[in-house]
Amino acid sequence: PEWKIVEKNGVEMLERKYEFPDFASALMFTERVGKLAENEKHHPSILTEWGKVTVWWWTHKINGLHRNDFIMAAKTDSLYQPLLKDYIES
Amino acid sequence: PEWKIVEKNGVEMLERKYEFPDFASALMFTERVGKLAENEKHHPSILTEWGKVTVWWWTHKINGLHRNDFIMAAKTDSLYQPLLKDYIES
Repeated sequence: PEWKIVEKNGVEMLERKYEFPDFASALMFTERVGKLAENEKHHPSILTEWGKVTVWWWTHKINGLHRNDFIMAAKTDSLYQPLLKDYIES
Repeated sequence: PEWKIVEKNGVEMLERKYEFPDFASALMFTERVGKLAENEKHHPSILTEWGKVTVWWWTHKINGLHRNDFIMAAKTDSLYQPLLKDYIES
């Protein structure tokens, strides 16, 4: 439910902001999302800040949203809770 | 020379955009800038995209620019050329 469709420079994208307790855990999430992107050959924009990460998914080739973007959004969500758990326990 | 002073939400920041040949090298740069930030306990915003990374430095405590931001900007630059060299040779 936290994903929303936004328009940036005339292109529709999926956007979600994730919260973290500090910069290090935000950076770790960015790294994991980036690795996922490389594995899937589908690349988001990722804004890493102190305590938060914003992710945008869209399909460059069609300059908009495709079914695959929604799948990538769900996969991004699946990286979030485990990371927080690992991080708090470490 | 590529750093410029910009205003975001009423706060002056240093901004520079770095270019890369692909997503993986951009992500690698983000990770290195993030590690630098953690070491220095001074945290930028970092936007990672396919082929580019944008970095913003400012001092949260004063909501603006401090001498240390300019030092961090120079240190960020010093991570850029070596990364491109490592990456192309690997």
